[in-house]
Amino acid sequence: MPYELYYWPSIQGRGEFVRLALEDADIAYVDVARQPGKNGLPSMLRLLDGRECVQPPFAPPFLRAGKLLIGQTANILLFLGSRYDLAPRTEAGRLWTHQLQLTIADVVNEVHDTHHPIASRLYYRDQRQEARRRAADFIATRAPKYLGYFEQVLAGNPRGDKFLVGARPTYADLSLFQLVAGLRYAFPRAMTRLERQLPLVVALHDRVASRPRIAAYLASERRIPFNEEGIFRHYPELDRPVTRRR
Amino acid sequence: MPYELYYWPSIQGRGEFVRLALEDADIAYVDVARQPGKNGLPSMLRLLDGRECVQPPFAPPFLRAGKLLIGQTANILLFLGSRYDLAPRTEAGRLWTHQLQLTIADVVNEVHDTHHPIASRLYYRDQRQEARRRAADFIATRAPKYLGYFEQVLAGNPRGDKFLVGARPTYADLSLFQLVAGLRYAFPRAMTRLERQLPLVVALHDRVASRPRIAAYLASERRIPFNEEGIFRHYPELDRPVTRRR
Repeated sequence: MPYELYYWPSIQGRGEFVRLALEDADIAYVDVARQPGKNGLPSMLRLLDGRECVQPPFAPPFLRAGKLLIGQTANILLFLGSRYDLAPRTEAGRLWTHQLQLTIADVVNEVHDTHHPIASRLYYRDQRQEARRRAADFIATRAPKYLGYFEQVLAGNPRGDKFLVGARPTYADLSLFQLVAGLRYAFPRAMTRLERQLPLVVALHDRVASRPRIAAYLASERRIPFNEEGIFRHYPELDRPVTRRR
Repeated sequence: MPYELYYWPSIQGRGEFVRLALEDADIAYVDVARQPGKNGLPSMLRLLDGRECVQPPFAPPFLRAGKLLIGQTANILLFLGSRYDLAPRTEAGRLWTHQLQLTIADVVNEVHDTHHPIASRLYYRDQRQEARRRAADFIATRAPKYLGYFEQVLAGNPRGDKFLVGARPTYADLSLFQLVAGLRYAFPRAMTRLERQLPLVVALHDRVASRPRIAAYLASERRIPFNEEGIFRHYPELDRPVTRRR
């Protein structure tokens, strides 16, 4: 039975990190809420409300793998990494890959908050002023710090600077690709400037994008375009340095 | 050789989730930056700057365990859970425990942002107005949603409602204790109201607090008091519902 991925049907969001791993490892899966001709959303919402399972996830994405129902993006990738060729087999390698993934998850949370610094449930337009301040700080200090960290990890990898961990791609590389792609969509002006300092991160992005299964996926209809409902949103007014208020 | 925990010396912060696990499992450790008569902070900062190790952590806490240097709080707990009696031995149990821990990590991030919704590097006083809006939403919607989720998980545990996972305590229970303790410190008025709906979560907090090693730890000087430099901060003006601006 193929795995079942549960995620919102109209955005890449956090589900995309799982989709990229499933696609790259050629794992059969059903994207439950996106099946043609079916409305899978109610079954996702039923699992979330907790009456149908004793171990309900707090939020999508979650993955059904036989009897397991696994929530939290990084946890799903940890599971997939232990079953498929998406992470090292050694304990040290698995922990290091997971550590990098959790750091990517931290950036992703911060990216979300550039457009929703006050409350997820409010509209962007209701927190626009705060978003400008937060996005300015993200662009000026957080994005360079995080991306510079990944550049340093690539440069320091004793097995070469092609991948984050060892000499072969892991789910963390796929996720770093997605982070760069998302940041380019959300903050094209800032990223153009930032990328000058990130040759290894940019090369990794390109290397992942050209992997045959990833390239096929990105060209397919399975890849939802970036849009202003997801985590990486392009609001031009957030893509530039602003003077900080005091 | 005892483990070495690296974390800021004057706050509980994210390091506290690791300290509680080390204390409860009676694991020998050195709290590097807090050794009496020694200044361990420089050695922590040297590891963070990445020139002394090829797998530098992005931020504290991190744990040195022999040759391993493990970063990211949840990742450290995943490691400790695999070595000590702090998590189930089955794959399903380990993943579920980790999933809950990652959800606790999400709440902790949101708690941090109640007082720092704009930028970590700015002072609270420079983002006070935004903090009031964010804290009001946290109290009104996010805290009830997260804590209600853990209440539901306890109620649904087929092995009884004493612990989150199975019939024995895990690192996720220790962390849920810390979350409740921190929220009580930060938002005493809001929590008094909220706790009426959370009998199982409150009972779990008390159960963890009375575990002999945890009780001894909490009464010791090793437990840093909550303060306004950490994640859980008590600013009375954030501890009440405010009318939302439009």
